[in-house]
Amino acid sequence: MRAEIISIGTEILMGEILDTNANYMAQRLPAMGIDLFFMHQIGDNKERLVELIQTARSRSDVVILTGGLGPTEDDITRDAIAESVGEEPYVVPELEAHLRNFFERRGGRMPEQNVKQATIIPSGESIPNPRGTAPGWWVEKDGAIIIAMPGPPAEMTGMWENDIAPRLTARSDGGVLISRTLKTTGLGESMLDELLGDLRHAEDPTVGVYHKADGVHVRLASKAMYEDIARDRIAPVEQEIRSMLGDAIWGSDEDTFQEAVAGLLKERGMSIAVMESCTGGLLASTITDVPGASGYFRGGLVTYTAEAKIQYGVDASIIDEHGVVSNETAAAMAGAVRRQFDADIGVGITGVAGPEPHGGQPVGAVCLGIETQDESYATGYTFAQTRAAIKARAVTSALTLIRRATLGELMTGSSGVYRRL
Amino acid sequence: MRAEIISIGTEILMGEILDTNANYMAQRLPAMGIDLFFMHQIGDNKERLVELIQTARSRSDVVILTGGLGPTEDDITRDAIAESVGEEPYVVPELEAHLRNFFERRGGRMPEQNVKQATIIPSGESIPNPRGTAPGWWVEKDGAIIIAMPGPPAEMTGMWENDIAPRLTARSDGGVLISRTLKTTGLGESMLDELLGDLRHAEDPTVGVYHKADGVHVRLASKAMYEDIARDRIAPVEQEIRSMLGDAIWGSDEDTFQEAVAGLLKERGMSIAVMESCTGGLLASTITDVPGASGYFRGGLVTYTAEAKIQYGVDASIIDEHGVVSNETAAAMAGAVRRQFDADIGVGITGVAGPEPHGGQPVGAVCLGIETQDESYATGYTFAQTRAAIKARAVTSALTLIRRATLGELMTGSSGVYRRL
Repeated sequence: MRAEIISIGTEILMGEILDTNANYMAQRLPAMGIDLFFMHQIGDNKERLVELIQTARSRSDVVILTGGLGPTEDDITRDAIAESVGEEPYVVPELEAHLRNFFERRGGRMPEQNVKQATIIPSGESIPNPRGTAPGWWVEKDGAIIIAMPGPPAEMTGMWENDIAPRLTARSDGGVLISRTLKTTGLGESMLDELLGDLRHAEDPTVGVYHKADGVHVRLASKAMYEDIARDRIAPVEQEIRSMLGDAIWGSDEDTFQEAVAGLLKERGMSIAVMESCTGGLLASTITDVPGASGYFRGGLVTYTAEAKIQYGVDASIIDEHGVVSNETAAAMAGAVRRQFDADIGVGITGVAGPEPHGGQPVGAVCLGIETQDESYATGYTFAQTRAAIKARAVTSALTLIRRATLGELMTGSSGVYRRL
Repeated sequence: MRAEIISIGTEILMGEILDTNANYMAQRLPAMGIDLFFMHQIGDNKERLVELIQTARSRSDVVILTGGLGPTEDDITRDAIAESVGEEPYVVPELEAHLRNFFERRGGRMPEQNVKQATIIPSGESIPNPRGTAPGWWVEKDGAIIIAMPGPPAEMTGMWENDIAPRLTARSDGGVLISRTLKTTGLGESMLDELLGDLRHAEDPTVGVYHKADGVHVRLASKAMYEDIARDRIAPVEQEIRSMLGDAIWGSDEDTFQEAVAGLLKERGMSIAVMESCTGGLLASTITDVPGASGYFRGGLVTYTAEAKIQYGVDASIIDEHGVVSNETAAAMAGAVRRQFDADIGVGITGVAGPEPHGGQPVGAVCLGIETQDESYATGYTFAQTRAAIKARAVTSALTLIRRATLGELMTGSSGVYRRL
């Protein structure tokens, strides 16, 4: 089954937004046995969209459109699909009633132009959108399927998961590409390349190595008629790599680093609390992105000033002596917040997110401290990047330290200040 | 001048990388007076690429390709261009010598397949690539320009800046597209559409309305021979819209909502502190994303448990009586953190990010409280979405409340609990 994606929106062609919707679907189509041959982005121009839909449906089995389903005049997707299959949209009374109810429940009246969102064509079927006012369309004509989904990513992915993906999978003619991604920490890309040796040249499964923000990923992929056959080909190679890399692998596939660290904290029954300066709450927010964080996350303090650090238990003399951005202050912050929240692990982050140097340290200097019942450790980094990137890398490094603390590996390869308590 | 972009690489179609090259050019073409009508991504398949290049050159003046210029068999861009214009590539002796030197300087020998990278066609011209081994191509035939650049973003942008952009600008038939985006809060998309009335149908500048996470954006765009003329056409319409929408406009163009709120806090000399539960530090992190936040951000507390809220000054009886997710608790959190950090404005957020209901409230229920010297206000929301989206929307809503507090508009349209202190 061949698919083609068309993303609609002048904002994409103006470079104002990246087309993440197409990327989302591209990641998911291979496992559904669907080959993606083309992705296109096009502006809010009906004539050009009609032409593109016609070309696409002449060569692909499924044409998936996102965007352009809003209520305004710029929203041309419904009209373009109707024109390309030579049909006329009409208002569906139940959809209209549902839409009017939606506005009334929010205490308003539906603007009349919104009735566009309650239309369909004879060859089409409306797809519910629980997260917005624009239903999707599933159109079948002359052997080709045309699907339209809303542009806002939350609405698109919701509709994809609930309706579109299951229906497409059922219609796909089989044959799947299955992949397995193993995510590592502490190893560089070329180091992994060497470690994997001949496996890197295997044909089935193929083995790829990719450098990512949360470490280096190893991706195994196999294409077969049935999913279980592809998985059986991947499994022994995965085992081989797992026994080769051990603890360096922290997760797989869709796992996030914070989920992996959360899993370890839960497994070992350890609680955590964090005191943040330059990351401004991003570490706490990242830890609490994981559902169930209340089971081990005791709390966080964003102590942006030296006064606030002292107020919540950092010894003023440590800041005076070593400076506010120092391993010693980071370690003291970790200890202070561990006491504040009576947690098993305390983490302290102090640094310079920029754009100005601070506390005698250059932009990008970050010190991380961690304290458990038995150990205290602090180490410094220099992240020579933008403010947002410095915050993100400091948080990833803090999660790495938390992971090492739960695994009892704080001392491994340490270049910072380590103390047994 | 009409342009079309084709990005080549199976990794893009597999969803492994986002096509940031096309986005980079899309951002730059309007100010060069070049209209971008289509962007496409296609895999490493010569037949399909030839077909797409032919379609593109039949309707566009410039077809810009990136990717597929490497030395391997998968690298099909040169051959596809040659075939689509009906010419044969040949090796250019100077390019070959340059390439062999490149490898020798690095202590190696050039693999013979790399000689592909030293080829050109009769209608083409080679474009130097100081950052890699793949030169670009500039091909002109039958009135259309075809440009090929390497896929690695650093090589692509280097070649773009040094050669491609200046040459395209010189060839562009003049004229620039200038745009201005006004960002609003508190007004819905269709409400704005109605308010703008006839302006929505104006031809120059065009006026578009877009729903975004931080509110609805109004985008004015004008195309003219010279930049100042386009700006002169936009200015009076911008003034008209500004006087129509007043305070509903919080910023323009690249401004972020947090920067706009930060600007107001600075302007009014007000400091702020936040106590967060369900957002887990994301509000503090968002506020401190703005450089210079230390000037007004006093600090944050992430009180994920009821005990932690009480520890930092929330009256236990309020939580007992009204529940941990309630307007009353949110207001008390705002007051408590204002006192903790001696700030002008305190903000409290309590809610249920999910996936499980909590404190007798459903997933997505969020209460926000805010306290200034004179006022206390709290209100509830229901964000029926994913955990990450609930956090993000709670933060945007909190920033909206902070903005209203600094503007002295806390009471406007209030449906929550308001008290003068």
